[in-house]
Amino acid sequence: MKILVINAGSSSLKFQLYRMHDESVLAKGKVERIGMETAILTYEPENGPELREVSEILDHTTAIRKVLASIVDPDTGVLKSVNEIDAVGHRVVHGGESFKGTVIVNEEVKREIKQLFDLAPLHNPAHLLGITAVEANIPEVSQTVTFDTAFHQTMPPLSYLYPIPMVLYKRHKIRRYGFHGTSHDYVSKHAAAFLGKPLEQLKMITCHIGNGASCTAVLGGKSLDTSMGMTPLEGLMMGTRSGDIDPAIVPFAMSKEELTLNEVNSMLNKHSGLMAISGTSSDMREIQQAMQDGDSKAELAFQMYEYRLRKYIGAYAAAMNGLDVLVFTAGVGENSAILRKAVCDNLTFMGIELDDELNAQRSGSERLISSPASRVAVLVIPTNEELVIAREAHALLNQPN
Amino acid sequence: MKILVINAGSSSLKFQLYRMHDESVLAKGKVERIGMETAILTYEPENGPELREVSEILDHTTAIRKVLASIVDPDTGVLKSVNEIDAVGHRVVHGGESFKGTVIVNEEVKREIKQLFDLAPLHNPAHLLGITAVEANIPEVSQTVTFDTAFHQTMPPLSYLYPIPMVLYKRHKIRRYGFHGTSHDYVSKHAAAFLGKPLEQLKMITCHIGNGASCTAVLGGKSLDTSMGMTPLEGLMMGTRSGDIDPAIVPFAMSKEELTLNEVNSMLNKHSGLMAISGTSSDMREIQQAMQDGDSKAELAFQMYEYRLRKYIGAYAAAMNGLDVLVFTAGVGENSAILRKAVCDNLTFMGIELDDELNAQRSGSERLISSPASRVAVLVIPTNEELVIAREAHALLNQPN
Repeated sequence: MKILVINAGSSSLKFQLYRMHDESVLAKGKVERIGMETAILTYEPENGPELREVSEILDHTTAIRKVLASIVDPDTGVLKSVNEIDAVGHRVVHGGESFKGTVIVNEEVKREIKQLFDLAPLHNPAHLLGITAVEANIPEVSQTVTFDTAFHQTMPPLSYLYPIPMVLYKRHKIRRYGFHGTSHDYVSKHAAAFLGKPLEQLKMITCHIGNGASCTAVLGGKSLDTSMGMTPLEGLMMGTRSGDIDPAIVPFAMSKEELTLNEVNSMLNKHSGLMAISGTSSDMREIQQAMQDGDSKAELAFQMYEYRLRKYIGAYAAAMNGLDVLVFTAGVGENSAILRKAVCDNLTFMGIELDDELNAQRSGSERLISSPASRVAVLVIPTNEELVIAREAHALLNQPN
Repeated sequence: MKILVINAGSSSLKFQLYRMHDESVLAKGKVERIGMETAILTYEPENGPELREVSEILDHTTAIRKVLASIVDPDTGVLKSVNEIDAVGHRVVHGGESFKGTVIVNEEVKREIKQLFDLAPLHNPAHLLGITAVEANIPEVSQTVTFDTAFHQTMPPLSYLYPIPMVLYKRHKIRRYGFHGTSHDYVSKHAAAFLGKPLEQLKMITCHIGNGASCTAVLGGKSLDTSMGMTPLEGLMMGTRSGDIDPAIVPFAMSKEELTLNEVNSMLNKHSGLMAISGTSSDMREIQQAMQDGDSKAELAFQMYEYRLRKYIGAYAAAMNGLDVLVFTAGVGENSAILRKAVCDNLTFMGIELDDELNAQRSGSERLISSPASRVAVLVIPTNEELVIAREAHALLNQPN
């Protein structure tokens, strides 16, 4: 079985083509600047070099056509015909309260995704464009959608409700949804398997620290609470997002700086976080480099980032009354040994003991980085959201109806 | 030495008259509905019954005149002349970054309090009215001001800066200030004294849980971090305040419900918290009564309130890498045994072990409620913000110049 995984944004589209029997990637790539005369298609087959083509790509349907053409290209393609693609799995950011797992696309599902445009105005419309673009190109193919929010649908009302007038929940569905669910799900399962322990019995905190960042209290394999909220703005300090602030700052700043609703959203989502404090970068690698060069603002940005993450780990240990496993994943979580060290060295009171050597080793594989004496197992588990989407599509389409 | 302590609000004013050599209260009371023809003065002398008088009190100067008249009334008064009052100590909510402790009022201080109107529009103007009203009535008396924010001025930038564009801090002083400082200061000192341990060596979390609620990480006697922020809205769930929410909810709700900046502020400050979830009350006593009567919304409100408090305790233990002392104070903190039990019973992982009998005892005095085996000493310390204000005024005015 071959499954094409698609992550469609408003002006970009990433893809990976999986061969499911060995879960290998036959080809991957992306289309950038959709809507422009100078759109860029990048295509990388399994055993060949990356190819790059600049051309006019004005819409998602054309983008998908270009991607499919690359995949079946006589010289550099990996398939003979698009009919060899058994299914297309899409990433969808917001599944609201409707979707608690991956589903097969039908008219009803498309309607529901559309109804969620309000809650994810930047993402869901683009995802739907991706789905209809596939329909236009390969009408017969089965499509599935995997939601960033689905894993967190196990949260109890205690965690997902905000202490604000209930009419806001009833009328506008204002509640905590949480995001990065596919990743939190994947790494929590892999962490338990790595340790050879039953997931059902573990108190785990998974830290997905990339450009966006969230951490989740995973109790017995289920999301109990997560730091992102109604939107991906809440929670941890991120590359360009503020995370938690006094909500009163929003109207205060709007009034003082005469900001519109869009401008204040943009300020908190695109011009805050590491970028705002360092003044130079939203990228943790650059922040760390600047720290080494003695940049005190970068140092402060790093410290705030670490401090706010550490507080969440403490909060979620309190939420579960204990912690067995702490997992770091995603770009920063997998690669920043100094961040992991700063966090763990300041959490010895809860029995965390890092092995500095194991932590410092660079490796792309799953690994333990705590010492044998640590009461909490600390792990690095590389995440793979595309693979989860492919697996979920595979599982769903192979189910007996 | 006799010191009058005043807490002036926009339409009310509370007072306590202290005799400092034994710290006894000679008289106390309040004026409510200032500005109305039917204002109410309540006055309670040390050894007499509470008196109540309804009359026209149109401004703070008149209110202070009425209070002073009660204090020197030939029949029910406690002083022969207002000249026996050696000093007046005021509570001021917001001291910004200017005030790190209690100061004697002069023109410069009044100017500074005025400059902070923007940050505390509901409180600071009323406090200044209280100060000038005292000047109008007893021009010669020394006045001091004690700030809710002062204790938290030891917070490092790590804690007090928000990860938002730095221009907002530079231009508008948007940062974490924290409140209830007088109370956190008082109970942390009393807790150390009660335990006979040096404050400088303790990791402490003080939970001031009243109608408003905040908790503070007190490291070595200094505020390291506190849950209230630029305003008293941030942090814990409170009687009518939301505490932490996804900041993106503010513009979203404004747009969906067509709310003005004032309306969204009012919603989050006055119609959220326990009130919003229970639908019936912002008062923890009523919530607990309703829970006993099987009210599931009250039960959920209580659970959210406890859960959010517990997460802060975990977060601050992580902030300090450990916890030696946990203190509960203020109305709910001192009186709700079931809240304290719910919090502590779910924090056994950090070595907290409550003594259920000690916890259940009703008493107005300082007491230990954890078991001898508990690694964290859990205390109830009744707070007394007025006494701190009197003591600070006393200390300041008795200093050699």
